[in-house]
Amino acid sequence: MADLAKYDVLGIGNAIVDVIAPVEDVFLNQQNITKASMTLIDEGRAQSLYDAFPPAQETSGGSAANTIAGAAGLGARTAYLGKVANDDLGQVFAHDLRATSAVFKVPPLDGGPGTARCLIAVTPDAQRSMSTYLGASSLFGVKDLDEAMIADSAITYMEGYLFDKDEAKHAFIRAAEIAASAGRKTALTLSDLFCVDRHRTSFLHLIQGHIDILFANEAELLALYQTSDFDTALDNVRKDSAFCAVTRSEKGSVLIKGAETVHINAEPVNTVLDTTGAGDLYAAGVLYGLSKDLPLAECGRLGSVLAAEIIAHYGARAEANLRDICGITR
Amino acid sequence: MADLAKYDVLGIGNAIVDVIAPVEDVFLNQQNITKASMTLIDEGRAQSLYDAFPPAQETSGGSAANTIAGAAGLGARTAYLGKVANDDLGQVFAHDLRATSAVFKVPPLDGGPGTARCLIAVTPDAQRSMSTYLGASSLFGVKDLDEAMIADSAITYMEGYLFDKDEAKHAFIRAAEIAASAGRKTALTLSDLFCVDRHRTSFLHLIQGHIDILFANEAELLALYQTSDFDTALDNVRKDSAFCAVTRSEKGSVLIKGAETVHINAEPVNTVLDTTGAGDLYAAGVLYGLSKDLPLAECGRLGSVLAAEIIAHYGARAEANLRDICGITR
Repeated sequence: MADLAKYDVLGIGNAIVDVIAPVEDVFLNQQNITKASMTLIDEGRAQSLYDAFPPAQETSGGSAANTIAGAAGLGARTAYLGKVANDDLGQVFAHDLRATSAVFKVPPLDGGPGTARCLIAVTPDAQRSMSTYLGASSLFGVKDLDEAMIADSAITYMEGYLFDKDEAKHAFIRAAEIAASAGRKTALTLSDLFCVDRHRTSFLHLIQGHIDILFANEAELLALYQTSDFDTALDNVRKDSAFCAVTRSEKGSVLIKGAETVHINAEPVNTVLDTTGAGDLYAAGVLYGLSKDLPLAECGRLGSVLAAEIIAHYGARAEANLRDICGITR
Repeated sequence: MADLAKYDVLGIGNAIVDVIAPVEDVFLNQQNITKASMTLIDEGRAQSLYDAFPPAQETSGGSAANTIAGAAGLGARTAYLGKVANDDLGQVFAHDLRATSAVFKVPPLDGGPGTARCLIAVTPDAQRSMSTYLGASSLFGVKDLDEAMIADSAITYMEGYLFDKDEAKHAFIRAAEIAASAGRKTALTLSDLFCVDRHRTSFLHLIQGHIDILFANEAELLALYQTSDFDTALDNVRKDSAFCAVTRSEKGSVLIKGAETVHINAEPVNTVLDTTGAGDLYAAGVLYGLSKDLPLAECGRLGSVLAAEIIAHYGARAEANLRDICGITR
């Protein structure tokens, strides 16, 4: 039995600033952007795409960092590991994360590529199509792992996006090993459909061997098990993972824990403006619930409430008081 | 009679990136921030205040730049003069302004202070309290004036905020002289109550001698003429300025041109979220109308529609298609 952890949730992911702008669908075609997915781009492409972008809003992002900000907003004790550069955008990222009460002390990168940025084109249907220049964030490696911090976190939560870079991938597996040695839980989000396709074998190996808590959306789960039948995918994941939460957009979500299965409805939203961060904030609600040993249905409800907050405005960080909208008083 | 101008409106102002966050009123007291005003701060204070700030959103701002972005959104041919640094935030500022179709080619500052930023604390009553670190923007001077551009702009629009720095003040007066020599119009916004108090004599001299079109809110106009009676202030400004537009928040606005006076109602808004940029966007609508020789009442209506768009969301740049919401088809 592990000691009481200092942190409820530690996130590990790409430290990214989001650049968000509304576009028409024709813009995606003109720029060869695959709708509703995330594409990695190099610095040159990042510059030319930014030049073509309409006026934008910059907000701190990064999938796992969004989750950490959300969990902190609910009152969880949180920390984050990720790499920014020593530049304006790196300061913005660090400030916004620390201002949520999360502990973030990875030293910024000097003299290398700049802080990662994600150009997010939001179409009128509220779908976001992301082009990500990883910059400094992809230089996160084993040396940036804070072993004591990982060992002192009840749950270490990692984003699948990191699997696109070998150096980060190694860090990722090492983090899971440290957490396991300390008797802590590990969590993973699959992050992206194409990410799952590119790294299916590695993901399955990781999930089966190192992960206690799995997050995925429906399409990612189907891709992971190469099936078009949702129930088949659920049967598979039930064997591979002790706990899994699957989001299904307006159909809500399904939480699985051993033989137990709970279906959660999506929370009503007046106008869906931008789905950026919906999955990240859903995970925040569920992870908070798990850290407080709340029932499965309550974990799912918290995830749904946070997801509903985030899709009603631009940006992947909450604007409302999350404890208030969830009715958390303790 | 001057030749047909290449630009409808040229803006001159502080090139600033806005850092916007919601706060409670108690935060203003704790940080000694004067509510609903703009305070200039130095770099050290900017850093300590930013450290205390909640998570924020970065958007391109600057009063005159917001106006230029709005006028461009209506279809005006626009340009801008202002100084950014050669850093991330400077690139963000330049990108967002150019993406509105505005021409902006002042070279960024190398090796000096960073791009200006304005920390905007938005209280639940939607009032914004601004703390501005002027950085590179205050180094804008006579040498940065593009004389050909000023001479080729139907209206050169200047923000009163610049009056807080002598170097920029000189540039400002020189710009007005260039415009006048080319037979063009000049416009000024008073910008800020304390700015008016600090520079009343200079402002009156400028308005009486160099300005054709004046923008102010009610409080600024009262401060300019040191009266508590609105009609007295209007009588005064009618003598000093050929054209004046005075905004009065939810009471709408008053436009004065010679003996002519038009009262414009405020446009209805469901939820006022953040008044940042309301005056800037109002000026954009009026300037567009003036550049197209539209009737006074139509100029005021365009201003009101743009102001209503901007206060319904965070940030001082429009999210809607401004031509659509104004019903402009030509």
